[in-house]
Amino acid sequence: MAGRQRADRNRDGTTPPEGPSNVFSPSAEFPPLNDAELAALREIGRAWGAALRDHPPDETELPLDPNLDQHDHPPTPSRFGRLARVEMFRTGRREELTATGAENVSGGRLGRATGRLRRLLLGPPLASAAVLQERMRKLVALPVLSSDLLSSVAYGPEAMLAVLVLAGSGALGLSLPIAAALVVLMIAVGTSYRQTVYAYPHGAGSYLVASDSLGPRFGLTAAAGLILDYVLTVSVSVAAGISAITSALPGLAPYTVPLGLLVIAGLLAGNLRGVRSAGKLFAAPTYLFIVAILLLFAVGLARAAGRGFEPVPPPPVGAVEGLGLLVVLRAFASGAASMTGIEAVADAVPAFRPVEWRQARTTLTWMVGILVVLFAGLTVLIDFNGLVPRADETLLSQLARQTFPSGPWYALVQAATTLVLLLAANTAFNDFPRLLFFMARDDYAPRRFLHMGDRLAFSNGIVALAVTAALIFVAFGGYTQSLIPLYAVGVFLAFTLSQSGMVMHWRRHRVRHWRRRAAVNAVGAALCAIVLVTAAVTKFVDGAWVVVVAVPLLVLLCLHIRSHYDAMRQALTLATAPDGTPPPEPDQHDEPAGEPDRAGEPDRAGEPAGGGDLDVGLTPAQVRHLVVVPVARLNLAALRALAYATSLGQPAFAVHLSPEPEEADRFRRQWEIWGSHLRLETIISPYRAVIAPLAQYVGALHAARPDVTLTVVVPEIVVRHLWHQLLHTRTELRLRRALRDLPGVVVTSVPVHVPE
Amino acid sequence: MAGRQRADRNRDGTTPPEGPSNVFSPSAEFPPLNDAELAALREIGRAWGAALRDHPPDETELPLDPNLDQHDHPPTPSRFGRLARVEMFRTGRREELTATGAENVSGGRLGRATGRLRRLLLGPPLASAAVLQERMRKLVALPVLSSDLLSSVAYGPEAMLAVLVLAGSGALGLSLPIAAALVVLMIAVGTSYRQTVYAYPHGAGSYLVASDSLGPRFGLTAAAGLILDYVLTVSVSVAAGISAITSALPGLAPYTVPLGLLVIAGLLAGNLRGVRSAGKLFAAPTYLFIVAILLLFAVGLARAAGRGFEPVPPPPVGAVEGLGLLVVLRAFASGAASMTGIEAVADAVPAFRPVEWRQARTTLTWMVGILVVLFAGLTVLIDFNGLVPRADETLLSQLARQTFPSGPWYALVQAATTLVLLLAANTAFNDFPRLLFFMARDDYAPRRFLHMGDRLAFSNGIVALAVTAALIFVAFGGYTQSLIPLYAVGVFLAFTLSQSGMVMHWRRHRVRHWRRRAAVNAVGAALCAIVLVTAAVTKFVDGAWVVVVAVPLLVLLCLHIRSHYDAMRQALTLATAPDGTPPPEPDQHDEPAGEPDRAGEPDRAGEPAGGGDLDVGLTPAQVRHLVVVPVARLNLAALRALAYATSLGQPAFAVHLSPEPEEADRFRRQWEIWGSHLRLETIISPYRAVIAPLAQYVGALHAARPDVTLTVVVPEIVVRHLWHQLLHTRTELRLRRALRDLPGVVVTSVPVHVPE
Repeated sequence: MAGRQRADRNRDGTTPPEGPSNVFSPSAEFPPLNDAELAALREIGRAWGAALRDHPPDETELPLDPNLDQHDHPPTPSRFGRLARVEMFRTGRREELTATGAENVSGGRLGRATGRLRRLLLGPPLASAAVLQERMRKLVALPVLSSDLLSSVAYGPEAMLAVLVLAGSGALGLSLPIAAALVVLMIAVGTSYRQTVYAYPHGAGSYLVASDSLGPRFGLTAAAGLILDYVLTVSVSVAAGISAITSALPGLAPYTVPLGLLVIAGLLAGNLRGVRSAGKLFAAPTYLFIVAILLLFAVGLARAAGRGFEPVPPPPVGAVEGLGLLVVLRAFASGAASMTGIEAVADAVPAFRPVEWRQARTTLTWMVGILVVLFAGLTVLIDFNGLVPRADETLLSQLARQTFPSGPWYALVQAATTLVLLLAANTAFNDFPRLLFFMARDDYAPRRFLHMGDRLAFSNGIVALAVTAALIFVAFGGYTQSLIPLYAVGVFLAFTLSQSGMVMHWRRHRVRHWRRRAAVNAVGAALCAIVLVTAAVTKFVDGAWVVVVAVPLLVLLCLHIRSHYDAMRQALTLATAPDGTPPPEPDQHDEPAGEPDRAGEPDRAGEPAGGGDLDVGLTPAQVRHLVVVPVARLNLAALRALAYATSLGQPAFAVHLSPEPEEADRFRRQWEIWGSHLRLETIISPYRAVIAPLAQYVGALHAARPDVTLTVVVPEIVVRHLWHQLLHTRTELRLRRALRDLPGVVVTSVPVHVPE
Repeated sequence: MAGRQRADRNRDGTTPPEGPSNVFSPSAEFPPLNDAELAALREIGRAWGAALRDHPPDETELPLDPNLDQHDHPPTPSRFGRLARVEMFRTGRREELTATGAENVSGGRLGRATGRLRRLLLGPPLASAAVLQERMRKLVALPVLSSDLLSSVAYGPEAMLAVLVLAGSGALGLSLPIAAALVVLMIAVGTSYRQTVYAYPHGAGSYLVASDSLGPRFGLTAAAGLILDYVLTVSVSVAAGISAITSALPGLAPYTVPLGLLVIAGLLAGNLRGVRSAGKLFAAPTYLFIVAILLLFAVGLARAAGRGFEPVPPPPVGAVEGLGLLVVLRAFASGAASMTGIEAVADAVPAFRPVEWRQARTTLTWMVGILVVLFAGLTVLIDFNGLVPRADETLLSQLARQTFPSGPWYALVQAATTLVLLLAANTAFNDFPRLLFFMARDDYAPRRFLHMGDRLAFSNGIVALAVTAALIFVAFGGYTQSLIPLYAVGVFLAFTLSQSGMVMHWRRHRVRHWRRRAAVNAVGAALCAIVLVTAAVTKFVDGAWVVVVAVPLLVLLCLHIRSHYDAMRQALTLATAPDGTPPPEPDQHDEPAGEPDRAGEPDRAGEPAGGGDLDVGLTPAQVRHLVVVPVARLNLAALRALAYATSLGQPAFAVHLSPEPEEADRFRRQWEIWGSHLRLETIISPYRAVIAPLAQYVGALHAARPDVTLTVVVPEIVVRHLWHQLLHTRTELRLRRALRDLPGVVVTSVPVHVPE
């Protein structure tokens, strides 16, 4: 399968995955080890074998069976009662358990209530095995994926006419040739995308295609454009949907912003439920919209026929600026907003039922066909009826009101328009998390976007989109026309890069008819590039500059994220060399001479005492322990920590920090009363600081012997109510923060529970 | 010493402290153990001795000397470079180190810059040994402690006249008899407090006296009144100070609020520097104020003599309400605001140089004397000059303008008034943290108020006061007269309780002349009670209701805090019975039968394997270990954690959480390549949750064998830049949170550093 091979190349060639890489799998969070890493692992395992030769860890040593096999009695709730529902059962295999409960356990009563509310809103959790069942049939996919594209006709023609009318009502007649050009563009881009779906059967948005064919930076540029596009799709569609409502019910106009936020919240909840449920919810309105607009055409044509196809002249409107090429180009670029959403199918191929690419391609063809009919029909009908854009009522609303002067039909058209626009926003909720998933898998976005929620939806991406779109919606006051200039630039940037990428793709893969295919994509790319440049230049001051600034910033951010993950992978990899050479064996180095304590220490593992590099510590023999127990007061918490530390059987001592020598003396007397079972070290902190001297002392110990792993054992007071934490100094937490920068210093907190 | 014994009783009799309890010592954060606890400690120590009989921890086992003695080479900065300044040196004694640096180490570059700025603003840290040097001489104490009291004359007479003028200008003549009554009250209360200072030589504010003599609830009521008083002192004094400025320079009136906030910030910084520096800063202005007002008297009298002591009739003002008893009482209660601050000396006795009580008493006498002169003189002079309160200019400003129609003398009076008012706020900064210290020592306030900052100031209390006062200042728009009604109620509540407490005190302690002394305090208490009731009733709707509501709420909060600390002390004490019986020895209980793993486990300490109560685990023999290592991926971080866990030499196994069985199989193959050195348990999480199943699994392990201490070893990815944490899932942190409610589950984080 050609698609499979190509998809693999996406992943920068370093780690060929076992399965197809363009599908969504929960295992994406756990990338497998590559050969070099496996070789290193084998080598390290041998070193462990040598280290543990004399004292191999014995399974029978475990004080309880980790399989929980022999415990028939159900585990009882803990004293704090928060982990009450502990139900785990064995599957057939010996070393495998399956978790039945997916609830979040933390948070006590409030957390459980939230969990219940969550289940009520989102439905029961879905197992990973259900991924395949969550695919869409064409008839479901069409409304889910096309609402964005089709709903664009609700504001696209209006955006075009709103520019033309600036040159006076005489210029409105130009809408027909511009619309014809746009129809050509739609068909060209649609044909281009049909090829993309075929070439990338495992799902291929602009990001994947551009990354694959043009390189990662172009891919990221396309991704940045798409990210802006998706966010704006939500904002624009919700804004247009609300204005369809306020056109019908002008009394609601003051509530534009809260209404919009309510809608975004609803979309958020719907999408967190997962793909298929969302499809079901959203299928009817799209079909309703198509039917309503077609009905509008039919009645409109009948009425036009009634008056002998005599066009109504538009009301005279004075020209604000002269009719020049610039106005025509701006009108063209504005009208191109009708095409936003055409890429949805290409992105979402894996969400289709098998055979995915075939179903997706058919769906795409249908979508473009319907788009052309709706767009062309509306433009002609608006021109024919001599309608002019107005601030308080949308063009579509005017048209519907003229066509159906009274009765429920006008209400039907408006309701269908509103619904489909709100669902258009939903398309972005489908695509945005998918895009982020691919980017995260390539380490260009935070890896948390790889995580599938318990409803098999990418919850993190969905929430991120809802929050960003809501912010933009509020910032622009929910006004559609001020958002449009930002919109087209991002979309056509992604289109252009995606189509150019396809040209490169065909040139490289020279399959049958590759020249013809490349030509089709080249035409698409050229047309998209023209729209892109037109939109960016003619609308620069109107808001397009935001996109021109944001895209490079987003690309830089992605590259920075990637470089951080690269550094982390470098720091965590087992294989230091690409040929699989294991990390060098540690050797004795820079130990302070004349260390009388060293000689007396027994070698626990029968190995020569490995000093070891700081960065190694990979085998047990390399770890030399010293346990430090800071003790403030000899109470139960301190004795617990001391008992824990001592019982580990490793060298240990205690540290007491005192603000005054007198207090230190008093403490030492208590220590003697206890029996001085451990060495006690006292630090006088004359300036009464607590954390800094302790951290500096541990730092000094570490500096004196960097090869020793220092384990700092601190009791942690656990209180029942969160606000009670204010009453405690939380030494454990602060010490942990102060020490976390020191390599080789391990902090262990022994919890001590205060019941009230 | 009688005061010493009495002071000890304050501490509820449970832990008699070694030193005098009414002084401020940094050791207050480390209360010593009582006899019962010491006995329990000795008993527990014996159990340890038995447990460690065969394997006593050997000091020579330590891989390095905790004394850092044999390491002459200075410790080198760590790889992360944040703990660079590690300088510690030994004092003469063997087991004692002294920390030289008190800087906070955390926070990297920003933290170090903050530290430098802090030193610049606050000065170098002061050692605990410097506490005694920070005492005040009388001549320094007088201005520091009296500015509140003396500055009250800047708004007290005005508050009185502002009420009288409501009954028309004819009623203003009543100011003289009311003032006379207030002078009697001042002398009576002053005499009362002289006795308090004598009876409580270690410092005795209303809180201590009322707690000691009337019981903790009365003490807390007094404390609540004082807390409100201190906060309002800052707000009122700053407001009055700013209005003294705006009287002179009306152009500044619009900037009242920002100016006030600036002043509060200045006071905050000044007080964080510590007691003596604050005294030095603030001595001159108070003396200047006294001199300026006396000069005003002299010139005013001379002018009056010039016109033959003929009083000027006030301008006619229409009566808003009839002249009745209510108006007179309200005027009296308002005028009593001139007495706020009289308790400052009694609170601050320990800040005086030895002999403290004698110096304090002399200072108090001087203060009250000066107050009477200033208050009486101003009232007479205002009446004599026929002045009437106005909204845009203070009475004192009017008086000064009339007395010094031109030249620098008017400016001098206004400047001195402003300064002394701002310093009055400073009195609260001295007293508020002291009050909270006493309350915290009795467990009625968060214990962090016990902590002395590195300048020997109670930084936490100072910051708390500044923030609260600033909030109230902003809430009331910096307008003095609207704050006055809240003011008097809290103050006189504390006065009344304190004086009543003194009556009880003398009745109980029948020292020489106790009847006379009790009579003096009884008169003081009665007078204060009259003012309290008057103020609360007549000004209830004007704002006194806030205090009437807030005082009981504060008392309840304090009692709640106390009960939390009591519960904590109960949970942490070694002595379960008051007679010093040690906690019962643990015995074998409720262990699941047929546990084949148990038999094979070697007894590490030669003791019979102690199952042990959950709440015990106090000796090493009672701790039975099981180490659990959650592993997501076999990278360096995981191998570090595995090596650390294995090297502890305790029974250990690993857990892998997988979203799908296929991924689990893949992981097990890798585990086998590594060599399967540890037992591996796999949990399938079909709903892709990570933390919840792990926590539930650990909870199930714990429930299966509650006597086993589970140590969960997790690698923690440490990044250099804070925002990079967003790119990581922070499993360690979330797992720690989910597990902290489980007793007997210890979480150990092994840091792995990512350099970029």
